[in-house]
Amino acid sequence: MLILALDFGGTKHTAGSLIPGERQWRSREQVFSPPGADAHYDLETMIGLARRLLDEVQPAAVGVSFGGPVDFTSGTVRLSHHVPGWENTPLGGILEQKFKAPASVDNDANVAALGEYRFGAGQGYQSMLYITISTGGGGGWILDGKVWHGSDGMAGEIGHMTIDPQGPTCLCGKRGCVERLASGPYLAQDARQMLAENPEDGQTLLRLCAGKPQAIDGRLISQAAEQGDRIAASLLERSAWALGVGIGNAANLVNPQRFVLGGGVTKSGAGWWQQERSAARQTALPEVQFDIVPAALGDDAPLWGAAALAETLLAET
Amino acid sequence: MLILALDFGGTKHTAGSLIPGERQWRSREQVFSPPGADAHYDLETMIGLARRLLDEVQPAAVGVSFGGPVDFTSGTVRLSHHVPGWENTPLGGILEQKFKAPASVDNDANVAALGEYRFGAGQGYQSMLYITISTGGGGGWILDGKVWHGSDGMAGEIGHMTIDPQGPTCLCGKRGCVERLASGPYLAQDARQMLAENPEDGQTLLRLCAGKPQAIDGRLISQAAEQGDRIAASLLERSAWALGVGIGNAANLVNPQRFVLGGGVTKSGAGWWQQERSAARQTALPEVQFDIVPAALGDDAPLWGAAALAETLLAET
Repeated sequence: MLILALDFGGTKHTAGSLIPGERQWRSREQVFSPPGADAHYDLETMIGLARRLLDEVQPAAVGVSFGGPVDFTSGTVRLSHHVPGWENTPLGGILEQKFKAPASVDNDANVAALGEYRFGAGQGYQSMLYITISTGGGGGWILDGKVWHGSDGMAGEIGHMTIDPQGPTCLCGKRGCVERLASGPYLAQDARQMLAENPEDGQTLLRLCAGKPQAIDGRLISQAAEQGDRIAASLLERSAWALGVGIGNAANLVNPQRFVLGGGVTKSGAGWWQQERSAARQTALPEVQFDIVPAALGDDAPLWGAAALAETLLAET
Repeated sequence: MLILALDFGGTKHTAGSLIPGERQWRSREQVFSPPGADAHYDLETMIGLARRLLDEVQPAAVGVSFGGPVDFTSGTVRLSHHVPGWENTPLGGILEQKFKAPASVDNDANVAALGEYRFGAGQGYQSMLYITISTGGGGGWILDGKVWHGSDGMAGEIGHMTIDPQGPTCLCGKRGCVERLASGPYLAQDARQMLAENPEDGQTLLRLCAGKPQAIDGRLISQAAEQGDRIAASLLERSAWALGVGIGNAANLVNPQRFVLGGGVTKSGAGWWQQERSAARQTALPEVQFDIVPAALGDDAPLWGAAALAETLLAET
């Protein structure tokens, strides 16, 4: 018996096949979408990839992670913020027809949370919030050992919690969101502006980007901060503080056992982790216990979570 | 068959008896504790009150709301912030022995949430956050039709969500908590200080308190604001804004269907509600739907919730 796990990313699609209960992929393959690809192209590509992996075997269940809002109950993709043509696509139904097997579809943050819970850093923790902080900031809840979707499937949006009402304006229109203060592209944007205003504070950053501020990204900021760059260090401190306050607020509000953090920004070094844990601890009430740990599965969390979705389908039948 | 519902408040204790399934108390009585009462006194008073109400009938189940942290699983009171001697009292076990019936004990915010869910403004809403904002700010979750306690029984603490990191210092040590910006005693404290600094902005407030700032409380501030007092109006605006931002953040994070608001501050008039709803709507992402409604049961929410706890015990046996 085989299960099929699919991860529709923005530009990168991955499929894996697995014997239920095993912890190693029987086969696994990734393809990148060309610029300008649409939903139809991506879906056909993924189905072809999956057929190749399955090699004529019919899967017992299909689990799917989708990079965008999904109606979990019906398996319908609402839209993709990156790829046109996904509006109201009944992805679960299409895959059930193609593969003659039950399919379960959820958004990538929820599926990654499930992956970390079943196979990664959340194993044994019945309540946890998975947070990914990289190009954006999102999250997924596990409550009572199950994904908590919320009434519109929107639960877990810690990225747009307001942390500083006097802070800079986010693309969402509000000020001082977690994502605005902590995520990679905004850190880079702010670094460029600070460099333009006070280049003397960012000499290391300027050197590392070879004088081309457009080349600055989250990784470069981490490197510069490690080498003592003042602009980079202050931005990472703000990032860690904002995410820590967000975690502390979430701890007070929902009181989960554990927070699991993934995404590029969390690779910013021990100082970042220390500041983020400290801000979370100071924000939460003393009686509220929790720990904060790095995600274990990295970019594979959604694919492993998709496998968990498929295993859940098997357990239900 | 009768169930017994008990509400241990800080200074006010209420007992009610009810035929399961009915929506009117068979009997209901309230007593006030004298100053200096301790846990032993309060417990004996409550047991005497309950025996009188039951009139020799043995209850089928006992539900209890307690004004302080409780370990729900074991029915043990951790402590009371108002009454000495409650530390680690196995209240559930004591009541089971006294009344020869199963007992269920939870903290007042959770029990009030359950009361509103089963009998009040939350009926039919499978996910909701009940918030009470009066002398403090607390809350209780209903998720999937059940109380969500969190891993330490601390879930629902929206009162200590940080809203403004540059705001005034709260008793908890942090700045700009919901409770610090929105609850009654802090509004009164800030009103007194603003009056001392700019008495000309608080002429109505000064008149209403008959020149005695110590007499200012939340109700007086509401009255003064209605009559156009600038200090009172600005404080209520801050209160509504802070709670609204907290609700919007909670909506993004957990995505419940409904928020149910009780407590004295929510009686501050239509302007307060409008500002609070507007701040919540602006803070939540556009895709996150919810409504915010006043609590329906008022001060009776914990007693009704205690009845719901007892009914749940009956359903389980």
